[in-house]
Amino acid sequence: MASPSRDDELVLLPLGGAGEIGMNFNAYGFGPPDNRKWIVVDCGVLFGRESATPGVDVIMPDISYLAEQRADVLGIVATHAHEDHIGAIHYLWPMLRCPVYATPFTARLIAGKLEEANLTGKVRLNAVPLHGKLRLGPFGIEFVSITHSIPEPNALAIRTPLGLVVHTGDWKIDPEPLVGETTDANALQKLGDEGVLATVCDSTNALVAGESGSEATVRDALSKLIGTLTGRVAVTAFASNIARLDSIARAACANGREIVLVGRAMHKLVAAARDSGYLADFPRVLDEEEAAQLPPRHVLYLCTGSQGEMRAALTRIAADENPNVKLGPGDTVIFSSRIIPGNELAIYALHNKLASIGVEILSADDHFVHVSGHPARDELAQMYRWTRPQIAVPVHGELRHMTAHARLARSLQVPQAVNVENGQMLRLAPGRAQVIDETPAGRIHLDGRVLVSEGVGLTRVRRSLSFAGMIAITLVLDGKGRVAADPAIVLEGIPEPVHEAVRTAVEGAVKRYDSRRDDEERLRETVRRTARAAADGAWGKKPVTRVEVVWV
Amino acid sequence: MASPSRDDELVLLPLGGAGEIGMNFNAYGFGPPDNRKWIVVDCGVLFGRESATPGVDVIMPDISYLAEQRADVLGIVATHAHEDHIGAIHYLWPMLRCPVYATPFTARLIAGKLEEANLTGKVRLNAVPLHGKLRLGPFGIEFVSITHSIPEPNALAIRTPLGLVVHTGDWKIDPEPLVGETTDANALQKLGDEGVLATVCDSTNALVAGESGSEATVRDALSKLIGTLTGRVAVTAFASNIARLDSIARAACANGREIVLVGRAMHKLVAAARDSGYLADFPRVLDEEEAAQLPPRHVLYLCTGSQGEMRAALTRIAADENPNVKLGPGDTVIFSSRIIPGNELAIYALHNKLASIGVEILSADDHFVHVSGHPARDELAQMYRWTRPQIAVPVHGELRHMTAHARLARSLQVPQAVNVENGQMLRLAPGRAQVIDETPAGRIHLDGRVLVSEGVGLTRVRRSLSFAGMIAITLVLDGKGRVAADPAIVLEGIPEPVHEAVRTAVEGAVKRYDSRRDDEERLRETVRRTARAAADGAWGKKPVTRVEVVWV
Repeated sequence: MASPSRDDELVLLPLGGAGEIGMNFNAYGFGPPDNRKWIVVDCGVLFGRESATPGVDVIMPDISYLAEQRADVLGIVATHAHEDHIGAIHYLWPMLRCPVYATPFTARLIAGKLEEANLTGKVRLNAVPLHGKLRLGPFGIEFVSITHSIPEPNALAIRTPLGLVVHTGDWKIDPEPLVGETTDANALQKLGDEGVLATVCDSTNALVAGESGSEATVRDALSKLIGTLTGRVAVTAFASNIARLDSIARAACANGREIVLVGRAMHKLVAAARDSGYLADFPRVLDEEEAAQLPPRHVLYLCTGSQGEMRAALTRIAADENPNVKLGPGDTVIFSSRIIPGNELAIYALHNKLASIGVEILSADDHFVHVSGHPARDELAQMYRWTRPQIAVPVHGELRHMTAHARLARSLQVPQAVNVENGQMLRLAPGRAQVIDETPAGRIHLDGRVLVSEGVGLTRVRRSLSFAGMIAITLVLDGKGRVAADPAIVLEGIPEPVHEAVRTAVEGAVKRYDSRRDDEERLRETVRRTARAAADGAWGKKPVTRVEVVWV
Repeated sequence: MASPSRDDELVLLPLGGAGEIGMNFNAYGFGPPDNRKWIVVDCGVLFGRESATPGVDVIMPDISYLAEQRADVLGIVATHAHEDHIGAIHYLWPMLRCPVYATPFTARLIAGKLEEANLTGKVRLNAVPLHGKLRLGPFGIEFVSITHSIPEPNALAIRTPLGLVVHTGDWKIDPEPLVGETTDANALQKLGDEGVLATVCDSTNALVAGESGSEATVRDALSKLIGTLTGRVAVTAFASNIARLDSIARAACANGREIVLVGRAMHKLVAAARDSGYLADFPRVLDEEEAAQLPPRHVLYLCTGSQGEMRAALTRIAADENPNVKLGPGDTVIFSSRIIPGNELAIYALHNKLASIGVEILSADDHFVHVSGHPARDELAQMYRWTRPQIAVPVHGELRHMTAHARLARSLQVPQAVNVENGQMLRLAPGRAQVIDETPAGRIHLDGRVLVSEGVGLTRVRRSLSFAGMIAITLVLDGKGRVAADPAIVLEGIPEPVHEAVRTAVEGAVKRYDSRRDDEERLRETVRRTARAAADGAWGKKPVTRVEVVWV
């Protein structure tokens, strides 16, 4: 490792994931302030919500600050294949145009995304072996196997002339992960021995006491539970949790049930796992039509839709929109998953739909059918015992998780625990860690097919429309500026009784207009204010109001 | 009790609360089909959500079916004072114009609502004593004291010539409710001995095993917990849970803290409770200004805002918008409440805000600071052992709760358990219980200040606006039907790059219009379709599009 020059700094710049669970995007910079080399760790999305960002399915970080220095961005390194870690690569890569590095399973799923975006061949996508190493300019990167809820999760040991950073990615300590290796405690312990400057670590479950538990215990519990059921069984789980899918398939076999995959993501992820050498013992999968011929007690459907997603397999089955898969009285649906906060009402709506067709619902509320993929507090403590960093930097969490995580780290004698926000540049070395710059951070919305900066305020305007509707008024003036026709007034999303009040007020304002005294701009503004005031008076709300003038 | 005549029937018609937790409205009818007399039990609201009903704060049942028979509606009887049981009375009373009956505390809160709606003096509001009886036509009504999470909760024993119905209202079995009486087990047992036709019962916690627990245990736990804290303490709880407020106040006193009420509802509910003879030992309450002078360890703020409501006290404190109440590092907020499903993101946003100012958060997630006011499964079982009905009718729940409740009732040997939907008329007697009619049921939205039927589709339109924005186009034609000016095109909530595509397409369509060949309607429709198609092509979404034609 070269020695640092006097001006060199090591910085961490999170552009996503500091303040939210999702949209992970962390840039590490090394060099003097005017000539930093960068690597990007993870490039993920967040999913939009109708209440906060109506009409937006996918949210990603605004990376314009890095895009401006794109010649110095040496690569994107993905820790694992969850959407909140790789889902933005195919959208944001054109702004960075750098190579991408990931272990084989993750690389395969990234390749699929690049193909959909017509970027295959353009992007240098490099598969790194498990435990592999990589050098990108001043950064020496080592992949360290950990456990999570997807195959091939990695922590990264990032060596620089100013010190070693352990970037954990998403992880837990699962002594029996069922698919893939266990957490490489030995490697983490050795990194600690080598001397860790900073541990940049998952905060998701920093408010949860104890340990997250093992996939192996869920496997046993699922097998027993399914053994008690007599009708059709459908199980929904995150499709990327390959170990869980394997557990469910084995539980099916052990109870004399054939397995059927329902939903595009199920097929896609099982295929990707097999291609990468996992699921070697996965049982034969029946297709939906074959399974429809079997007696109910001999079938198990493995379905997408654990979050109540509108177009997912289980939602369609519940709505009787799947021609081959039918559920009814005597049948059972198992939700082998957690509720992602914000999805409660969608999931309970799905429960209600299933209840309405007589299906029994079993979930983590009252059965042991799920464990989290993120470290609870005892596991976090173990990570700090292994790595013994000078600095703890909580990431991948809302503020409530990150502050609890920082507090925990301090209680474990970590000398410095720092909470950063997206866009804050944290200097890790030299000297005490501190925020040295605020870069423009923000969010990009995939709105329909168009990328729109959140700052433009499109979703804010649309939320206003959803609250109070819209009035659009067109005034027609002649060559002398006189009113040449009745105004055209469009009201949308506004109660009928309010329409008349608005029309009367607008017509009054137009009548009071005097082309010798008032100009177009004044007319326009008077009409706008009159319309809004009339709506407010009759309704108590002020619609978004636009006034156009046409000249004939 | 008079004997029934041959055509008499006893029916239950839920217009709210069958399929949702909230908006409770149950009508009982007695008489021949063409001449029923009705009583209404509870008349509550549901609160709107931005995701489902943007711009609507309050939702209530559509009672037009009953309103048409208003001369035969003998009264509204309220079981207790929660908003989802009394919150719609002042909105819907003008459609029924019948007397209202409730025990004193409930009547006092109803009176406040009537006053706000300028209905005082118009409504015959009758305070019924605890354990009181009432006769309304064929209905003999007896108030039976139960326990819940508000003073004066009542079950109703409704006697008719065709049998006795026990309508539980909201309830639990709390051996030490702290405020008010315990559940009148003796009365319920006696009703069972007398012979109960139907038990119409709370389903909220039908999916929860065991028992709900007692307020007394929360009181002890809160006192101990607050004893461990050194900075300022703020506790948020449902303001109507007077026993909880009392517990918190006592915990404050026991730990040398003065109590301050923050938030309008806190003051209102404490005053109502005192007026009704409760909270006799409530300690002296400091006002916000006085308390600001005290050392942090001598103050406890009792705040509204446990659900993260935008304008509630705790939200304003967290945003540093309360001039007298400041929280910061070393201070603690206790959420002595549950999360109402759907409020997760608002509550966590409040947690994050509090975390950002250094406040520690304690909640039911990791501390024993709350018990539910609704019966868990062991309590439901006890209710069926007491009342031993022929028919169980689960109400006050989503379908998932009501079906689990019905299943539980059947497992307890109740001969018939029937799930009904809003608007379904269930004949309880004579003969087996069965749905004999479907009346028009629906929801009324309080949209701004205007009552709007959900069926009108206003919130559906506004959700479309929030998804894809709006295009409003005005075309100007002259006396011969020729285009007399450029079209006025307003685009709102649509990304900038899409605007040009829409403008170009609309101008093209207008150019192709030939007044000799096409009529106005055809022009209008062509332009509308062209605009939507252009937006779809450029964006992947179709805005709400309106086209007006003005003649000059």
